[in-house]
Amino acid sequence: MNSLLTTLGQRSKLAAQKLGQLTTVQKNNCLLQMATDLTTNTAIILAENRQDLSRAKENGISESMIDRLCLTDKRIQEMAEGIRQVAALPDPIGVVEKMWRTEDQLLIGQQRVPLGVIGIIFESRPNVTTDAASLCFKSGNAVILRGGKEAFYSNQLLVKLMQQTLRNNQLDPAMIQFVNDTSHAAANELMQLDEYLDVLIPRGGAGLIQRVKNNATVPVIETGTGNNHIYVDSAAQLEMALKIVVNGKTQRPAVCNAVETLLVHEAVAAEFLPMVEQTLTPQHVALRGDALALSHLKQANLATEADWSTEFLDYILAIKVVATIDEAIEHINHYNSKHSEAIVTDSYHNGQKFLKEVDAAAVYINASTRFTDGFKFGLGAEIGISTQKLHARGPMGLEQLTSSKYIIYGDGQIRE
Amino acid sequence: MNSLLTTLGQRSKLAAQKLGQLTTVQKNNCLLQMATDLTTNTAIILAENRQDLSRAKENGISESMIDRLCLTDKRIQEMAEGIRQVAALPDPIGVVEKMWRTEDQLLIGQQRVPLGVIGIIFESRPNVTTDAASLCFKSGNAVILRGGKEAFYSNQLLVKLMQQTLRNNQLDPAMIQFVNDTSHAAANELMQLDEYLDVLIPRGGAGLIQRVKNNATVPVIETGTGNNHIYVDSAAQLEMALKIVVNGKTQRPAVCNAVETLLVHEAVAAEFLPMVEQTLTPQHVALRGDALALSHLKQANLATEADWSTEFLDYILAIKVVATIDEAIEHINHYNSKHSEAIVTDSYHNGQKFLKEVDAAAVYINASTRFTDGFKFGLGAEIGISTQKLHARGPMGLEQLTSSKYIIYGDGQIRE
Repeated sequence: MNSLLTTLGQRSKLAAQKLGQLTTVQKNNCLLQMATDLTTNTAIILAENRQDLSRAKENGISESMIDRLCLTDKRIQEMAEGIRQVAALPDPIGVVEKMWRTEDQLLIGQQRVPLGVIGIIFESRPNVTTDAASLCFKSGNAVILRGGKEAFYSNQLLVKLMQQTLRNNQLDPAMIQFVNDTSHAAANELMQLDEYLDVLIPRGGAGLIQRVKNNATVPVIETGTGNNHIYVDSAAQLEMALKIVVNGKTQRPAVCNAVETLLVHEAVAAEFLPMVEQTLTPQHVALRGDALALSHLKQANLATEADWSTEFLDYILAIKVVATIDEAIEHINHYNSKHSEAIVTDSYHNGQKFLKEVDAAAVYINASTRFTDGFKFGLGAEIGISTQKLHARGPMGLEQLTSSKYIIYGDGQIRE
Repeated sequence: MNSLLTTLGQRSKLAAQKLGQLTTVQKNNCLLQMATDLTTNTAIILAENRQDLSRAKENGISESMIDRLCLTDKRIQEMAEGIRQVAALPDPIGVVEKMWRTEDQLLIGQQRVPLGVIGIIFESRPNVTTDAASLCFKSGNAVILRGGKEAFYSNQLLVKLMQQTLRNNQLDPAMIQFVNDTSHAAANELMQLDEYLDVLIPRGGAGLIQRVKNNATVPVIETGTGNNHIYVDSAAQLEMALKIVVNGKTQRPAVCNAVETLLVHEAVAAEFLPMVEQTLTPQHVALRGDALALSHLKQANLATEADWSTEFLDYILAIKVVATIDEAIEHINHYNSKHSEAIVTDSYHNGQKFLKEVDAAAVYINASTRFTDGFKFGLGAEIGISTQKLHARGPMGLEQLTSSKYIIYGDGQIRE
């Protein structure tokens, strides 16, 4: 075992015990100070970020990656503002969600407690560092952050600044730690740090998620992949359906809650598909339809079997015409990644049926899948969007970073 | 991949989709019929059970194991009664736990849905078959049961009978399936049936749990191991403390919520430890104390370091004298298996401190740890006691066999 990872793990475990016992005021004061210290140190953060950027340019990294990597005055202020928002959220720790008296006259409550130590493996955006660290801290969890090598200098400094704030608040700096080694070997060891890590959350593309799933022995919360559908029912208002399809596909195609496949009921295909083409083609969206869809489209290509399973994350939309809502639901449940699914309909029965039978973290009637997001859902924050069924499903806020403990008040009861 | 397991997995996955859509009445009627069919077939169940028993005796299995294996008229009636109790429980599926309107005027609800397909690996007691199958069925999950080889004939017949009831109700018999192969290889393949299993729950001794943890790639809910403590505080009522210690240790020593280590504050050790010895020695409990404890005990042996970590599951009690409540909490958090922990005290401050600082699934003031149980907690059922922090912690009832899905009602919202 890599001694770096073991040392980080041991320190985190000790720090987590102390962090779990802090008061809400202690945590909030420290978070607010972190936000201030971040903006005060804007100049040195930008200097470290320039190191990452110049290395990225040398390595011929793509423009969109460079954009994600790049910090500015404004972005640092936004990061600080993000931390202040986390400070303003209600503290989930200590909340007793329900309490009841049993037949034996025990008073039993279920209380929220931290998970312990959380590992986060993420890719290029440095704002994930402060974002994830503040959410873990507020929910009473120690965190070990392992960012991508592209943002190494930025991430390292951001963690150092947060650790300095912890020290200034007489707190253990190991409450927020950084893996100072960007090798794959170090990442793999983090994934197997069972003795110290309670959960591992990967944040990034499908490749990262798959690598974590394959290598982790620590419990993983799978996030991210969204092969999402919009089904336009025979009873849809087509103007509303068009708005929702355009929004789902083009408002931000590279994110996990964008739409990848459009399913259209055959009764409205002849009217609706030309509307879709006329709106999306000028926006440079490539359409890939099945044979029936192609009969209503001028410039689309034939979709392949692989297209139905693909999360394009791009200006590409697969289109299939279905004969019934059952065929649409069957297609979705077969090909989707259980993320976000929408029906557009004015039929009460079909709407309720879709909600009931489609298997996904978020199922919509008459709204864009782009709303699947912790902030838009009103959770106040988001550490990721879980696509698994255990522990947490859908957008994860502070509550999803907690566990529970039963607290039992007795007066001498024994079991007969 | 073993074709048996793959076939079972495929069938379960299909069956789970249908099971998740059944109404509560359909599920309850089928469960009540299963209970009746069980008692109607008592004679053939006992015949199969006799095969298991005679093979067990040939193999020189211990008396206590044979007792767990043995079915009787009365035990079969109890199994049927258990199924009827599950039928009587509220159906968790479809419940919308909360619903709120967001800033965008979306109406979002969080609805309980089944997990999907659950694997259960268990040891000798055949009643686990009907118990686990009925809980999974009621919570809308298909189940694949893999019992110990000692109870092979009994388990196999019990599943056949339940499948017959499913068929008689025009339901897919694959909703409840049995692994017809008791080899370790088949068990290991079940543990890696990622494509079809949503979760795996081992029910049995520490050896089984460890084997599952080491081999499973399917998400596991760890159950069972209980290295539990009672801390008798300086402010304890000693008569109450004695009753709780005796109950925790002797009422049923072989179960996971029994007590293994007694911690006693030094201020009451001289008075309390002789009381403990006088009560427990006639009940054949062997005491193993640290040096301080031995100074107050006549017939105890010196405890070794290993004793503090051991779940004896036997008439053995380790005893340590502590100088402070902090020392007690530190000892517990270091050695415990995060199952059940109790303090006996009349100090308000110490009681609240213990509840807050001890890390375990269930933490008690002035009551026996033996209450950690789904039925005693009022959950109406129990599939196991989770000792992990993810997904479920402590006694698991029907609700812990579910996941959730966000259902979102819109009226054309798109994201700006």
